[in-house]
Formats: sequence, structure tokens, C-alpha cells
Amino acid sequence: MKSHTEYLTYETKKKRELVHLTPTLEAILARASVQEGFMLVSAMHITAGVFVNDNESGLHEDIWAWLDVLAPFKRDYHHHRTGEDNGDAHLRSLLVHHEVMVPVTKGALDLGPWQQVFYAEFDGQRRKRVIVKIMGE
Amino acid sequence: MKSHTEYLTYETKKKRELVHLTPTLEAILARASVQEGFMLVSAMHITAGVFVNDNESGLHEDIWAWLDVLAPFKRDYHHHRTGEDNGDAHLRSLLVHHEVMVPVTKGALDLGPWQQVFYAEFDGQRRKRVIVKIMGE
Amino acid sequence: MKSHTEYLTYETKKKRELVHLTPTLEAILARASVQEGFMLVSAMHITAGVFVNDNESGLHEDIWAWLDVLAPFKRDYHHHRTGEDNGDAHLRSLLVHHEVMVPVTKGALDLGPWQQVFYAEFDGQRRKRVIVKIMGE
Repeated sequence: MKSHTEYLTYETKKKRELVHLTPTLEAILARASVQEGFMLVSAMHITAGVFVNDNESGLHEDIWAWLDVLAPFKRDYHHHRTGEDNGDAHLRSLLVHHEVMVPVTKGALDLGPWQQVFYAEFDGQRRKRVIVKIMGE
Repeated sequence: MKSHTEYLTYETKKKRELVHLTPTLEAILARASVQEGFMLVSAMHITAGVFVNDNESGLHEDIWAWLDVLAPFKRDYHHHRTGEDNGDAHLRSLLVHHEVMVPVTKGALDLGPWQQVFYAEFDGQRRKRVIVKIMGE
Repeated sequence: MKSHTEYLTYETKKKRELVHLTPTLEAILARASVQEGFMLVSAMHITAGVFVNDNESGLHEDIWAWLDVLAPFKRDYHHHRTGEDNGDAHLRSLLVHHEVMVPVTKGALDLGPWQQVFYAEFDGQRRKRVIVKIMGE
């Protein structure tokens, strides 16, 4: 069995931003030389997410508007007693989930035609990491 | 290490429909002859989900009613500028997640007594695929 | 390839409770002697979740308040025709997801500095199980 681990670092310019990861993940898979296996893509922070969906800008606007409704920025989260102001970012991480598992088949990411992997930064403008770990053969 | 991959194809009669996958997954596991490992069950589309919950029709009604509240069908999603009308289906895929990992122990799906795996179609009446990939020994 | 499986049992004192799993998971990993791999942590019930977030009590209050809004306790869920009263617990399990995959690197859980794993009990005061399964080398 082979294993291959890389860490991606992002410091987004905006507080909230989507980063399209698929090309980066394809390059990591090429370095891993795994034909059949699983690739875990997981945010290493509790105020970020990783998800699979469409790379379509209108949809991305809808996702942000939707998160503003379901996990709104608010002043009065209890978490803010710690001095933080990112309670919404924690809830958003729970909502979209912080990780995905991508199947690897015949040496390629086995995604559907419209599936792309995104890192969702909910509290950016600081260095954040994503782990990419492949297990297979 | 063994790997085994199959693709399921569904074309649901209704736009929104739940498909109970567990018996199909058990048959795939039997063909894979894996005793210990992981089975990834992942929708290959961005308007569908895969989740684990109860096979109880009242609960399924509750899930649809809940999705109608949290990710409603609306005319005015930005995504609809592309000509699509399925913005809600994308958000529902994010909400329930598009995949699950099922543990395999002693040659069987290691699910709890009430756990069943469902494919959740949010934009059906067309051919959609689900990948089932098992890695183990 | 090595595999290692353990089952955790919890009977929480309260109906709704978070259990911090990370120390228990570290002990399981030590017994598994896996250096590189994946650890699946998955609730075996449909009224519980497993998630990764911060071990901060204010945030935990926020999470419960948020779940009360997004998946409220209600008398009139269709699921309650079965005699149950835990419709909200099923929806909460879908919302926060019932499982996480934790990467294992150099013999340790490869979590970010603030990431902790929690079992989220949404319908407790009875015996519930969590499966922990490690595959690796």
C-alpha cells in the first residue's frame, strides 16, 4: 500500500472566499503515483470547509447568500466571549463539512463531469492549511 | 490490498426522490470479497446526495419538508442565469453531503441496527451516477 | 495493510450532549500501531452525529442554539406517527453529518491545532455506539 501526504497553505485576501482545488489535487495525485485509492481533502481549521460542487460563479453567489441566512454573522455568539468574532465561520464549517473523500480510479480523480473540489474559507486573511492524504496502490 | 469499483445509474421518475441503496451495496460488497475496509458511496453529480438514516416513510416526509425550508426552490437563484432552475438542488447536496464512507468488518457493512444508506435525488428524471468504491483486504 | 476496529459505547445523562472523543481516539490509534492511514469515526445511530470543531464551551452553546433553529424539536414530525418523539434528532444527524475521517500521519491523528473530534448525542439517555475503524500500514 502506498501513502502520500501533502499540506496546502492558503492566506486568502478576503475574509470569505472559495478556492478551486481540483487542479492542485490532480497535481498531487500525479506525484503520488496511486492508481486505485482514496484521497482525503480536509481543512485543518475549524472555520473553513471543503466541499464538492459546481464551478459556476452564480452558484457561488447563491452559496454565500444561503450561508448568510443559515449561519449568519452575528455579534452575540457565546463564542465571542473568547474575543473572537467568527462564530458564523464555525457553524458554516459544520454545515458544509470540513472534508471530502475523493475516489481515485485508474490514476485519476474519479469525479463526475461537473464535480469540482473547493476550499471554503470562512475566516481568512490568515494562514490556513488543508491536508491532502492519499492511500492506495 | 484489494480495490473494487462499481457505478450505479439511476433515472428517477420524480424530480425529488430517495433511493434505498443498502441491498445494492451489500451485493457489491459480496462481489468485492473484502473482509476489512472502507466502502465509499458518492454521488457523481452536484444536485444529489448520499446519506445514512432511517428507512421510515414518515421521516422521509420530514426530510423533504425540512429541505423545502432550509434550501427552498426559488426562481431567483443567481445560478439560474445559466438557464438551469435547480439552485435548490445544489444547496441540498451541500446540506446533506454527497457521500458517505461505510465501514466493512468481517465481510459485511458495519452499520448500526437502523442505519440505511440512501441516494437522494434532488434534480432527477435524467441519468445520474453513483460511485461505489471499496478498498480493503 | 493493517486494520483495527473498536466500538465505543455511550449512555449520556442528558438527552442532548457533546462528548469529546479525541483522547479516546488517540488511545485507540496507539493500540492499532498504524503509522499512515485513515481513521473513520462514525456514529452507529441515526439520531447522533460526529464532527470536528473547537473544544470551546461558548461555541458549544452556539451550536445547540443553532440546531434549535435549523432542526427544532417539534411535536408534529411525521416520524412521530411511529411513537417516537425524536424527529429533530434525525435531522440534526443529517445536518452535522454522522461521521468524520481523520488522517493518520507518522503514528498520530493529523488534526489542526484547534481541531477536536466530538460525538454529538441528539437523543441520549440510552446506550449508543460509535465505530472507530483504522485502515493503514
